[in-house]
Amino acid sequence: MPELRKTVVEIEGRLHEEYVVVDGEDLPAWPEDRVLSRVGQPLPRVDARAKVTGTARFTHDIQLPGMLHARILRSPHPHARLRRIDVSGALAVPGVLAVLTHENVPELGWPGRPLFDTVLRYQGAEVAAVVAVDEAAATDALDKISVEYEPLPFVVDLEAAVEPDAPRVYPEGNVSADEASVYVRGDTDQGFAEADVVVEANFRTAAQLHNCFETHGSVCSWDGGRLTVWDSTQHVFGVRKTLAQAFGLPMHDVRVIKQFMGGGFGSKGGTGRYTVIAALLARQTGRPVKLLLDRREENLATGHRHNTLQYIKLGARSDGTLTAIYHQVFAGVGAWGWVAPVGGPARELYRCPNVKTEEYAVCLNLGPDSAFRAPGYVEGTVALEGAMDDLAVALGMDPIELRLRNYADTNQPRNLPYSGKGLREAYRIGAELMGWHLRETTGYLPRKRTILATLGGGGNHSPEGEQPPAGPGGVEDLVCWPGTQPEDLPPHRRRGLGMASQIWGGGGGPPAHAEVRVNPDATVTVATGTQDIGTGTRTVLAQVAAEELSIPVEHVRVLLGDTEAGPYGPISAGSLTVASVGPAVRAAAADARRQLVELAASLLDAKVEELILKDGRVEVAGSPERGIALRELTARLGNFMVTGHGSRGPNPEDVAVHTFGAQFAEVEVDLETGAVEVTRIVAVHDSGRIINPLTTSSQVEGGVIQGLGFALSEERAVDPQTGRVLSADLENYRIPTALDVPIIDHVMVPGADLAANNLGAKGVGEPPIIPTAAAVANAVYDALGIRPTDLPLTRPRVLAAIKRLEEAAQAVEAGAESGKEQAGEGGTR
Amino acid sequence: MPELRKTVVEIEGRLHEEYVVVDGEDLPAWPEDRVLSRVGQPLPRVDARAKVTGTARFTHDIQLPGMLHARILRSPHPHARLRRIDVSGALAVPGVLAVLTHENVPELGWPGRPLFDTVLRYQGAEVAAVVAVDEAAATDALDKISVEYEPLPFVVDLEAAVEPDAPRVYPEGNVSADEASVYVRGDTDQGFAEADVVVEANFRTAAQLHNCFETHGSVCSWDGGRLTVWDSTQHVFGVRKTLAQAFGLPMHDVRVIKQFMGGGFGSKGGTGRYTVIAALLARQTGRPVKLLLDRREENLATGHRHNTLQYIKLGARSDGTLTAIYHQVFAGVGAWGWVAPVGGPARELYRCPNVKTEEYAVCLNLGPDSAFRAPGYVEGTVALEGAMDDLAVALGMDPIELRLRNYADTNQPRNLPYSGKGLREAYRIGAELMGWHLRETTGYLPRKRTILATLGGGGNHSPEGEQPPAGPGGVEDLVCWPGTQPEDLPPHRRRGLGMASQIWGGGGGPPAHAEVRVNPDATVTVATGTQDIGTGTRTVLAQVAAEELSIPVEHVRVLLGDTEAGPYGPISAGSLTVASVGPAVRAAAADARRQLVELAASLLDAKVEELILKDGRVEVAGSPERGIALRELTARLGNFMVTGHGSRGPNPEDVAVHTFGAQFAEVEVDLETGAVEVTRIVAVHDSGRIINPLTTSSQVEGGVIQGLGFALSEERAVDPQTGRVLSADLENYRIPTALDVPIIDHVMVPGADLAANNLGAKGVGEPPIIPTAAAVANAVYDALGIRPTDLPLTRPRVLAAIKRLEEAAQAVEAGAESGKEQAGEGGTR
Repeated sequence: MPELRKTVVEIEGRLHEEYVVVDGEDLPAWPEDRVLSRVGQPLPRVDARAKVTGTARFTHDIQLPGMLHARILRSPHPHARLRRIDVSGALAVPGVLAVLTHENVPELGWPGRPLFDTVLRYQGAEVAAVVAVDEAAATDALDKISVEYEPLPFVVDLEAAVEPDAPRVYPEGNVSADEASVYVRGDTDQGFAEADVVVEANFRTAAQLHNCFETHGSVCSWDGGRLTVWDSTQHVFGVRKTLAQAFGLPMHDVRVIKQFMGGGFGSKGGTGRYTVIAALLARQTGRPVKLLLDRREENLATGHRHNTLQYIKLGARSDGTLTAIYHQVFAGVGAWGWVAPVGGPARELYRCPNVKTEEYAVCLNLGPDSAFRAPGYVEGTVALEGAMDDLAVALGMDPIELRLRNYADTNQPRNLPYSGKGLREAYRIGAELMGWHLRETTGYLPRKRTILATLGGGGNHSPEGEQPPAGPGGVEDLVCWPGTQPEDLPPHRRRGLGMASQIWGGGGGPPAHAEVRVNPDATVTVATGTQDIGTGTRTVLAQVAAEELSIPVEHVRVLLGDTEAGPYGPISAGSLTVASVGPAVRAAAADARRQLVELAASLLDAKVEELILKDGRVEVAGSPERGIALRELTARLGNFMVTGHGSRGPNPEDVAVHTFGAQFAEVEVDLETGAVEVTRIVAVHDSGRIINPLTTSSQVEGGVIQGLGFALSEERAVDPQTGRVLSADLENYRIPTALDVPIIDHVMVPGADLAANNLGAKGVGEPPIIPTAAAVANAVYDALGIRPTDLPLTRPRVLAAIKRLEEAAQAVEAGAESGKEQAGEGGTR
Repeated sequence: MPELRKTVVEIEGRLHEEYVVVDGEDLPAWPEDRVLSRVGQPLPRVDARAKVTGTARFTHDIQLPGMLHARILRSPHPHARLRRIDVSGALAVPGVLAVLTHENVPELGWPGRPLFDTVLRYQGAEVAAVVAVDEAAATDALDKISVEYEPLPFVVDLEAAVEPDAPRVYPEGNVSADEASVYVRGDTDQGFAEADVVVEANFRTAAQLHNCFETHGSVCSWDGGRLTVWDSTQHVFGVRKTLAQAFGLPMHDVRVIKQFMGGGFGSKGGTGRYTVIAALLARQTGRPVKLLLDRREENLATGHRHNTLQYIKLGARSDGTLTAIYHQVFAGVGAWGWVAPVGGPARELYRCPNVKTEEYAVCLNLGPDSAFRAPGYVEGTVALEGAMDDLAVALGMDPIELRLRNYADTNQPRNLPYSGKGLREAYRIGAELMGWHLRETTGYLPRKRTILATLGGGGNHSPEGEQPPAGPGGVEDLVCWPGTQPEDLPPHRRRGLGMASQIWGGGGGPPAHAEVRVNPDATVTVATGTQDIGTGTRTVLAQVAAEELSIPVEHVRVLLGDTEAGPYGPISAGSLTVASVGPAVRAAAADARRQLVELAASLLDAKVEELILKDGRVEVAGSPERGIALRELTARLGNFMVTGHGSRGPNPEDVAVHTFGAQFAEVEVDLETGAVEVTRIVAVHDSGRIINPLTTSSQVEGGVIQGLGFALSEERAVDPQTGRVLSADLENYRIPTALDVPIIDHVMVPGADLAANNLGAKGVGEPPIIPTAAAVANAVYDALGIRPTDLPLTRPRVLAAIKRLEEAAQAVEAGAESGKEQAGEGGTR
């Protein structure tokens, strides 16, 4: 009899308790030696044809009869009070039907901030919304709204914002220590006291903008008291819940549809303010309303990966064993938002008895932040793996050796062994593929370096007198002299190799249901409430059902992306879909399979136990002549359709399910231009069993590329004088182009994670972005001998570092001249 | 563990074997004494608001971007050979994109007759189809198609068509004895030999046209290789199956949607030729295509209730006990079609050891027939209950007494007792309501009549020399002299009372699944694959779920009418929806309920057995303070949504499930005009437990009104000279108007049919139409003393009968004059 059980779920680095249903024994995962013929195949996406031929309908493609178009007027100021607004000019524009402002917006049960506020805390904050018969009229009308703003002092710089006298986003101040997320394991003071070596560093990472191919947008249509929303969302059921609350509707009166999606990296996880506005305007006008954001609005107002200031300090014994980790994070969340688990890697990645992490949200007069592919872990890995690199240098150890010395076999925060951990194997494979051993013997930097100088880094900020702030010069960069130059490089180019590790969730666990309907022609419809945000969910779920039912994948159709298409599905985030919805689909397919076999048993006059279902046929094992084609069997059922049900079982209680990986980067740095060229990435990840190597490849490549953008070029630039965002468009905000993409070699660590779930599979959407920037930064360090602490590594930043390096080298040389007896040849051992 | 079992299902008078899933013990029906608070309430339809405000979207309302419009050119001839067709003129009309004819129609797996044939066998047969940017252009283009027809001999009259030298619809002849449906129980020769009284009669019933408010039509749209169809259909899954076959698609690549329906009486049970044509044109043009039939096309080409010639003969002992029934039926199916079970009532309604029925299909040069609300039983009941009336007269028995004398407690063809049979109670209630006893004592015809004369009836036809044909004069009408005239009537009006019985299936049984999803706000979504053809299915299913979950009905939303909205649902026909889908919904709700209670048990630290779920709250029975609101419980589950699954269990094997009823009619006949005015109908039906008395009332009233149309005015008139249909429009085809509707008193026999299914409920869509015409005809007989055998009872027919009566009376009077000594006063006993 099915029963409900609580289960612990890790989503994006945070633990949640969820209920799931336990329906008898959960299926065991397919064993390692089981030959799988559908799962594991590199199949092109089942919806590839629809996408490339343009028949796939995205939210932007939705056209409804009588549909109106809405546009939003947004604050041009980073901080201002709205003194007066006059919409009469807009209402006079032909085709305009209504204008919403703070003065006339109806009361809602909307749980977010006011849709239209009188204090505008960021450039892009909603001031008014216009609805008109077409987009041109709506856009024209925006210009006709007369607004009187009172500009207020603003703060857009993270370091400035934590100063006590900084302009305040809210009266209560920009940083609240009370709301900090603080984690303590053991005693870091004691740990550092026990250390033979201590390294510390400050890191800065920039705000990354999602820039999904498809901008945010919604089409809202009321049908009497029912609301239907086509939405660019990662969670149809989540949007349903929030809209029901906002409009005081029973949830069953809200339907949310997202059939196809041009990418979702976290900013589409919630319910957009634009969605609520579109629904309001549709209700008011009695007609469907389409409200699509343009690229600028998208980049100003729908979220970003928060920028960070991080201080990290590692203590280790001389054999490399970590004794303490301290990681302090200030995250610029914007006008409101959340702090992602930047300290996650520090808490989890290495075996260490004494760990303390502190994560502080800092408000800024910029758009609110949001989750962004592996939120926090990307930023935190830059700091942790950079510091580990420093530690390796300080100890004269190979970076991989140092990591293996501190290899963790258990999840320390939860004190649970891992269900599976292929990180050691990832190091081995990655090192071999990258030729890591050459790093010791060829022109790359020698591992044991002479520390030539220390350079003063930026200050570190801690609220309310919290610990070790340091101030300017308190934390120092390690500067080394480059090693011998590889022969194949011109003198102005330096080559370096770096690597970094990855830990993440991806084990799934949120509740998910599925239904498998076997049609009379033996094709199958899988009904789920999940959505495909571009990752290939349709394809992967079809493979799972096809495998369990031993039918061709093309005989399976997966329904998703519609709160009325199937039973509940979780958010597509946290790399959890495959590991949450996948097992539910397999359970439902197994239920259908059992029914089919039972039926065949009665028709074949055989025992259920002696029957096998294989390649579209049920037959007596060993006597294939006693069998029946599945298609014949289903046709014989007449109108009856076998229907299987399945739910995801609870996460195992005795193990923690995580994904792991390592990436290796080879870079060349141009000393004259400061250009960092990544020439090769080797990515090796352990996500358990791979359902589809092709869609997995896409995720790995996409993650690496987005990680490269984070490392090298992507940065929300803000004018400190005006507080305005300078890179809200794709001309000034530089995501990698095809020309920027290096060779990406990737390998998935073989083997299923049999303890994880009934597929033995874990997620792979986020892991590949996590270590890329850290590996690139470590490679740049390897090339230049100066620790890059300020990402992205744009030419000016790299040039500045090179300049510091040269100055340091000159100083060393000058010193060497004056004390020649103390040194051999400069820069080498 | 769920298992599959075969079950016997009666759909529209025919038995089928179906598979259903048995999931543990099926729920017992709610006991009679259980107080139900949602089930049994006369709730207005849950979609009433959407319908009256126009937000409900019917197929006619579907608008898709880029949608084209198609029209069909149809044969003006009843029978013709297509010699030549030139579509160049049509293609030259601006806006026309394509024309389909027999010359260019692609090959299909369509299982029906060719979409465009070169021999056109009925007026309205498809000749060509035009698709254009709007309907006007498509219509214009129809006129521009040049067609050369070679007219062929035709036959449109049922009696003419069975003659050996009649024009043939197909070379093999119009009637095939091989394909007759013949049923034999016992030995009718012996039965008639044992009879003390034998009555026999010929009946004619006319072809009835459905005239659903919404005409047939489809909108077809291709999305790559997938086909979506908005269709006016009674079976979304059936259309899906046929279209998949036609286009060689996996079933999961066809989606059929029918959200709202303007009536379905049987002609919308299959897949329309227009649907296939629309899908072809959409595929060819790459754009959505809408093809809606107009009223004329509808009435020429989409089906009708077949007209019949029936011969019936009853034998009985002098105490009324039936010894034999013979019923022979010729049904005019049109160019092709099926014979409905016209002999059903004769086989089933009365206890009789010797029964023979023969049903012959007769082809005519008219559109193909189709099911029509209680197909066959409406026509057969006219004959059987008319003959029973004759037998009562012949025996001098009260008609009800005669029926009770032959009351059947078992289903004789299947030799099974009935699960429940409230017919006796229906007679009692109906007789009391109608004041049946007054029939004996007031001005109605005296029960024991003097047979004044016999009048020669029409001929009877039997194929290939089969038995008792009789020929002209072989069967005779019973003519009686009217009794005393009621005082309140003018001399030219006659009043009569009549009654008739009803038997039908309606027990359900085809497989049906349902899913009940409990939302976090404790509202519920019920997902099914059924459709609401206007009967109130959404409402009734919501009541069932609400009852089981003890929540308000408005907290339930029912999904249906979409092959992707839920698991398989059967055709909405045969009055089977409530009894098939309803139990599945209850089972699914019970599954959800069980999970909710289990969850509450763990939260309340109580035992499952001691908990009750009542009025939105789970609490310990007797300790209401230990409880939790359902809404709080579901909110606590976070993202988990309790999801219950249910299937319909198999029909009980030891009983036959049927519906029963009796109707009483009071009529007044105007002797001068021949007008029959029905002044009152009393309808008493037994359909087990009534889920919603209001929707049930609608069905009863609608059935009676449609039955009155069949009895009095509805008739497809065909010009014998041209073979063309004269009443394919609503001006000439006379469905009852509001002014034609009499007082309709109706009562449902109280009590649930606990053995039928877990609801104790049976269908009520068709039963009410079954006895109406028979009761009216019997009342006219009562009024006039002449047996109406030819329906509908239009004024000319009634006037002709009155003329025959007067002539007979004159003849009798003349005889009486010449032999006065032999009789008392003419016309009375």
